[in-house]
Amino acid sequence: MAQQARAIRTRRLILESAAAVFAERGYERTTIGEILVRAGLTKGALYFHFASKEDLALGVLDAQMLDEPLTPQPVKLQELIDQAFLLAHRLQRDPLVRASVALAMDSGAAGVDRAAPFRAWIDQVAEILTVAKVRGELLLHVDVTDTAELFAGSFSGIQAMSQILCDRNDLTHRVLVLLRYVLPTICTPALLIRLEMTEEHARRLAAEYDEKRFAEDGENLTTSSR
Amino acid sequence: MAQQARAIRTRRLILESAAAVFAERGYERTTIGEILVRAGLTKGALYFHFASKEDLALGVLDAQMLDEPLTPQPVKLQELIDQAFLLAHRLQRDPLVRASVALAMDSGAAGVDRAAPFRAWIDQVAEILTVAKVRGELLLHVDVTDTAELFAGSFSGIQAMSQILCDRNDLTHRVLVLLRYVLPTICTPALLIRLEMTEEHARRLAAEYDEKRFAEDGENLTTSSR
Repeated sequence: MAQQARAIRTRRLILESAAAVFAERGYERTTIGEILVRAGLTKGALYFHFASKEDLALGVLDAQMLDEPLTPQPVKLQELIDQAFLLAHRLQRDPLVRASVALAMDSGAAGVDRAAPFRAWIDQVAEILTVAKVRGELLLHVDVTDTAELFAGSFSGIQAMSQILCDRNDLTHRVLVLLRYVLPTICTPALLIRLEMTEEHARRLAAEYDEKRFAEDGENLTTSSR
Repeated sequence: MAQQARAIRTRRLILESAAAVFAERGYERTTIGEILVRAGLTKGALYFHFASKEDLALGVLDAQMLDEPLTPQPVKLQELIDQAFLLAHRLQRDPLVRASVALAMDSGAAGVDRAAPFRAWIDQVAEILTVAKVRGELLLHVDVTDTAELFAGSFSGIQAMSQILCDRNDLTHRVLVLLRYVLPTICTPALLIRLEMTEEHARRLAAEYDEKRFAEDGENLTTSSR
């Protein structure tokens, strides 16, 4: 158990180091050697977790996906809202998530499959929308793929603009605007009023997420220092 | 007149060369010398138009703005639609516009005011929305700034995703989806049915734009070869 916790932390340390060097030097110019220096690890420790620089990039890209499943909600569309708010929070809070999105948007990162995180993200949204459709939550005209791609694409631009204009300080508000201007075209008013779509709800979700994660980190710490 | 036309073409040649080198080497690593080689010009010719590398970057960033005013429309919101379709077309067609947007999204371009093009773009959309509001085209709850920022941010992400997934081949469709999912929340159904919001309309606008621009280029060509 101690060993597993240590492995998880080493993996995260490697990813954070890789992300930091990618962000500073650009993906193309980064060498494995620089990542080792940053992480303070041996080659063996790194190669135990990642086979190559490309593999590291995939690991970093993967970090933007939610690390645990969303709490299931009686109204499925609530999960779409919660997912968007949580990603906004993680972007504001976690350097690894920021680095992940920066790498996906970095047009200089040739040789990295930058389409993969967009596809994974579209799939996640589409999955929620498909269930919402089956449950009768969506208006008849709504195309699941178009809508999933609209959310993924819009979100990525909104967070980039928010980063450039104010270091993502207003990201929660911008995500709220996106949701409030799009959701009324995809579900009925009767459903709309049942959705929790406020900055206060976003803050509550963020606090729950941090608390849970902090508890886990504390657990890992205790376990690995035994 | 011949001289003025030549100056316009030289300016564009310099911007295209700068944009190409920025895209290849990244803004930070680009030198004025490399841009000169690419453009096949002397230092004097370049400095006549641009004072520094920063100044060149501003010129490239500026190229994403529409180069001529939109045709005024009886329904003001139609101009919002036309502007979005024309930007999609120019992104698909003009390497300088592509480079401009890439530079604005390039997180490695420290020292460049990447907020400026976003602000200019938000202002343009806000101007249209403000007139639309005065004319009574917008629903009461619509916040002009929030909506302008939503359009600018969403568009920038949608075009980035479209570029990564399919080299912007589906960009017109994605812009159409954005418009169709947001406009119903900002204006009444009675106004909505008066808006031209189809791929066919987008194609017509693009053809008109190209024809006009081609005519101008031809004119410049004749004038400058006299």
